[in-house]
Amino acid sequence: MLTKNDIKLIARLKQKKYRIQEGLFVVEGIKTIKEFIESSFKLHQIYTTETFGLSTSLETIISETELNKISFFTNPNTALALFKLPDVIENKEASGLIVVLDTINDPGNLGTIIRLCDWFGVSKLVCSKDTVDCYNPKVVQSTMGSLTRVKIAYVDLECYLETTKLPIYGTFMNGENVYKTNKLPQNSILVMGNEANGISSNIEALVSKRLAIPRFGNIQETESLNVATATAIILSEFKRYV
Amino acid sequence: MLTKNDIKLIARLKQKKYRIQEGLFVVEGIKTIKEFIESSFKLHQIYTTETFGLSTSLETIISETELNKISFFTNPNTALALFKLPDVIENKEASGLIVVLDTINDPGNLGTIIRLCDWFGVSKLVCSKDTVDCYNPKVVQSTMGSLTRVKIAYVDLECYLETTKLPIYGTFMNGENVYKTNKLPQNSILVMGNEANGISSNIEALVSKRLAIPRFGNIQETESLNVATATAIILSEFKRYV
Repeated sequence: MLTKNDIKLIARLKQKKYRIQEGLFVVEGIKTIKEFIESSFKLHQIYTTETFGLSTSLETIISETELNKISFFTNPNTALALFKLPDVIENKEASGLIVVLDTINDPGNLGTIIRLCDWFGVSKLVCSKDTVDCYNPKVVQSTMGSLTRVKIAYVDLECYLETTKLPIYGTFMNGENVYKTNKLPQNSILVMGNEANGISSNIEALVSKRLAIPRFGNIQETESLNVATATAIILSEFKRYV
Repeated sequence: MLTKNDIKLIARLKQKKYRIQEGLFVVEGIKTIKEFIESSFKLHQIYTTETFGLSTSLETIISETELNKISFFTNPNTALALFKLPDVIENKEASGLIVVLDTINDPGNLGTIIRLCDWFGVSKLVCSKDTVDCYNPKVVQSTMGSLTRVKIAYVDLECYLETTKLPIYGTFMNGENVYKTNKLPQNSILVMGNEANGISSNIEALVSKRLAIPRFGNIQETESLNVATATAIILSEFKRYV
């Protein structure tokens, strides 16, 4: 049975401040929920039309009508689960390829980038504090389980980049042709910038290697690639010689 | 002054059957509208809060409230324009890099792929008849003017691929590592498949070269890249040696 408090709690979890206050976030879709259950994330409660065989303290059997009421989807699956937000452990290890995001606003872009980090074995994703929250329901929906495997931290980027010893790569319209650069080192930081404004000037000052993806069409110089597709191309370049 | 008929017409243009019936589609956002006006597309009517200096038969000055009523955006810009659907000229020229889409359903993915074709100078985009319509408002919104530069056709794919003399590349989980293949030829067809099911079996039978993007993370074999990011990576591989 779904209570009024359950409905109210779940609706509030759309907003970051309530996710932090409650220490919870929403995961939907059977396949993704199972990946989260099998990961290090802790299940708080699952609302489902078909039993998962979990203890009754963790599982609430609900009707389809009730699921429609709480789901963030237009066409909900058969279950919605609440997981506990993980403790934030700031791991200062500095090796492997690290992706840094400077003010990414669109949840779909962040979700796509998390999936790309998972695919390309990126060791860590470091986001500026004003980047969209990775526990935003739209991000969770679009990552499809990659969120259980990619380590994500939200930090003061200037501070973070000032103290690293790794080379810092960034993409700019006027950078060096990424196809002509020497082999890109596997221990590196790659900075990707905001959808509309690119990398901010205080972060740009800390970038040591400027890369560009060349343009082949008859398009204007002001056009740019979407940040998620640009990330795909640059990560592919970092990994293609491994 | 906005009439009731204008409001009704514009609302109907969200649907493909009415776009075909009326021969019109919607473009929003000043920058994109200007790119369409300067292209070969024919302007039918612009509804705007600030004059573009066009003849009064083409321009209707409206209030912000009226714009809010007709816009498909949550935060509308200052103008909404109707353009005429172009005549479909089936150009059989077969050279350059041609991207073929087999049943792409998501408007955002199609929009991103159109922008990628523009960026990488793809000569033509050929879509299966059941691929989402490129004049869908969400596609127009996400292409940002690339729609004025990329040639797009909707055809019977089996028929199209059976008659081409170009090599046909496709991406599959079990294809050849794209980073290890010989230089990819500039006169080629690249087939990308549906978001959930990949390339359909009748089209797969016509593919001559099977490519794969290798996976580097500890993820399950069933995971896949989003079709737009996969297209970005493969197009980049086709163009990186040009």
